[in-house]
Amino acid sequence: MSVTAPQGFVAAGLACGIKASGAPDLALVATDDGHPVPAAGVFTTNLAAAAPVTLSRAHLEETGGLAAAVIISSGNANAATGDKGLGDAQIMCALVGEGLGVSTTDVLIGQTGLIGIPLPMAPIEAGIPALVAARAADRSAAEAAATAIMTTDGMRKEVTIVGPGFTVGAMAKGAAMLAPHMATMLAVLTTDASCEPAVLQAALVRAVDASFNRLTVDGCTSTNDTVLVLASGRAGTPTDPDALAEALTEACQSLAGQMAADAEGGSRIVHVIVTGAVSDDEAHRAARKVADSNLVKCSVNGEDPYWGRVVSELGSAGVAFDMALVQVAYGDTVVCRRGVAADHDDKAARLHMALPHVEIRCDLGLGSGTAAVMGVDLGYGYIDENRTTS
Amino acid sequence: MSVTAPQGFVAAGLACGIKASGAPDLALVATDDGHPVPAAGVFTTNLAAAAPVTLSRAHLEETGGLAAAVIISSGNANAATGDKGLGDAQIMCALVGEGLGVSTTDVLIGQTGLIGIPLPMAPIEAGIPALVAARAADRSAAEAAATAIMTTDGMRKEVTIVGPGFTVGAMAKGAAMLAPHMATMLAVLTTDASCEPAVLQAALVRAVDASFNRLTVDGCTSTNDTVLVLASGRAGTPTDPDALAEALTEACQSLAGQMAADAEGGSRIVHVIVTGAVSDDEAHRAARKVADSNLVKCSVNGEDPYWGRVVSELGSAGVAFDMALVQVAYGDTVVCRRGVAADHDDKAARLHMALPHVEIRCDLGLGSGTAAVMGVDLGYGYIDENRTTS
Repeated sequence: MSVTAPQGFVAAGLACGIKASGAPDLALVATDDGHPVPAAGVFTTNLAAAAPVTLSRAHLEETGGLAAAVIISSGNANAATGDKGLGDAQIMCALVGEGLGVSTTDVLIGQTGLIGIPLPMAPIEAGIPALVAARAADRSAAEAAATAIMTTDGMRKEVTIVGPGFTVGAMAKGAAMLAPHMATMLAVLTTDASCEPAVLQAALVRAVDASFNRLTVDGCTSTNDTVLVLASGRAGTPTDPDALAEALTEACQSLAGQMAADAEGGSRIVHVIVTGAVSDDEAHRAARKVADSNLVKCSVNGEDPYWGRVVSELGSAGVAFDMALVQVAYGDTVVCRRGVAADHDDKAARLHMALPHVEIRCDLGLGSGTAAVMGVDLGYGYIDENRTTS
Repeated sequence: MSVTAPQGFVAAGLACGIKASGAPDLALVATDDGHPVPAAGVFTTNLAAAAPVTLSRAHLEETGGLAAAVIISSGNANAATGDKGLGDAQIMCALVGEGLGVSTTDVLIGQTGLIGIPLPMAPIEAGIPALVAARAADRSAAEAAATAIMTTDGMRKEVTIVGPGFTVGAMAKGAAMLAPHMATMLAVLTTDASCEPAVLQAALVRAVDASFNRLTVDGCTSTNDTVLVLASGRAGTPTDPDALAEALTEACQSLAGQMAADAEGGSRIVHVIVTGAVSDDEAHRAARKVADSNLVKCSVNGEDPYWGRVVSELGSAGVAFDMALVQVAYGDTVVCRRGVAADHDDKAARLHMALPHVEIRCDLGLGSGTAAVMGVDLGYGYIDENRTTS
């Protein structure tokens, strides 16, 4: 059921003609009675942010954190499209608002696809009324929405989390090596928990930080990344004030895992776990440096436990580092101890490198800071997907 | 003649047996009379710096910027080798010093190869006396030295610059996609200009900043990068105080260009030129972000003028950026103007992308900061070279 699992939400998805392939490309998530409810959003930090990012930010600010619907289109990012692109996104929100009987600012928007190409507005303007009319609270409506936000995702990404007295539903598209020329990560979460907008925003920030922000494909930051949540309140206020944030986190972690698992055939997921940093923040920076390293990623692709590259990345991560204290392990096999090669079972290390999930465990020996970042290897598939956009 | 072109220098190179292939792996550059002369060095910023980096830094500090010789070995980086590695590097310097009749601290050292493997000292200890005995000032000695520092370089990298009244000679190895698992960049420069150590150091920093620091292959920072210069003084003090820095810069730029040109077959060199930044430093950071982007590099590999990725990288480079002002051109073809697609000759842009040297020109429209960074594309060759170390 995903986004329609919590009480109070409807969804829809259809093909309006943005994608030349004829695949579904327009999705809606809305409250079932058309009333605005508390909403929150986390967006890309890219200063070249796309029109939908600019507009959704503005709408959340104007309403003080309320929304009745989210419209998402796929196949065109509406990025680097100037004032025309912003106007087009506004038209989309206005058309949805008209259909639902709410104001334009009560509608949020996410878009994903190629950058720098004007939106084809005729099919979108024709599609939105049909999309609004098709909205429903059943499983197939949620699936239609989750399908319509896909670009070259190999599978739909949905999750439902049952919390204490409330439910969280979510769908996402992106990002792991699917086709990073449309690598935007979009996610929409719904919940029937009751929650003030400011609390909802804080919970979403916490959830995104512990999930999508711990996943890296190539270190590139999309112009369109957007995570939105709407809270209908139908299930009342959770008795445990932390429960909603925890459920949102669980949902986002599931979606991030699904993104990584959807990586190009034959590739591996790399879990870089850093302990012993002087702070969690430094552990995160160190883990990300290792996970984003093309040299480390190539080693993982080749199933080669060449820990020298891991140490080299740790040493250039811009964090406190003492070569004489560092330890590196692949899975449970410690290959480097106190900064030099450790006697180890080479066969065990190589067997671990051949698994679909590879763990690179680094201990800096300096403090209690820890972090884990999930990445992918670098193989032919990434290049094939990204050489050309046609 | 390269390193033996300036008056006062000898060189040598031979195979001592570090490399299993039997290829040359031990090189020497020294003053012809064994006297220490002003010397300077620029080293990797990696906190996991290898033993030779630690030792050369210490020797330059102890002597106040003097050296009589540089010993270089290839095939083993002597990195992540702990106290044993530092002791081994000291033994190497001591053996060279013994042969030349100078103290250990008058000898600098550079090493390149695999990380985390103890140095095979027996062949090195047998090789150094033979190396010292073979030193000569002729062309073949310089070539032997330049050959012995190669790892999987496809060609020797040498240059001789004739300045006003003095000469600069130089050799290097590395780095562009040759085999970045031994991607260390090493360079040794010699000159017969007379120059105080502090002035020489400042000139070398300026030269490296305008050359090697403007070249990026994969954004990884080696544990072993080392650039050294020795000044014999035989040609006297240059009348133009800037002339030596300019000649060193010219030599380093030539070597950096040779490194890029030695990239894996079929690949392209990418020149990212940023103008209109608020400062030269911000221009440099923006250019480096574009040049290090896997998505941009894949586009170049696929000859696809997809400027959306360039704008996205500029927007996430952490520099001042206004989407409404940005302009992007491939060669002379402007494809994005004021942040949106510009009418342009698509055929011209595609023809430019198919050249061996691709120019991506970005104007941020904000100020007068400019910078150029040289990078390479990302193709199968990079992955092939880096999947395994065996």
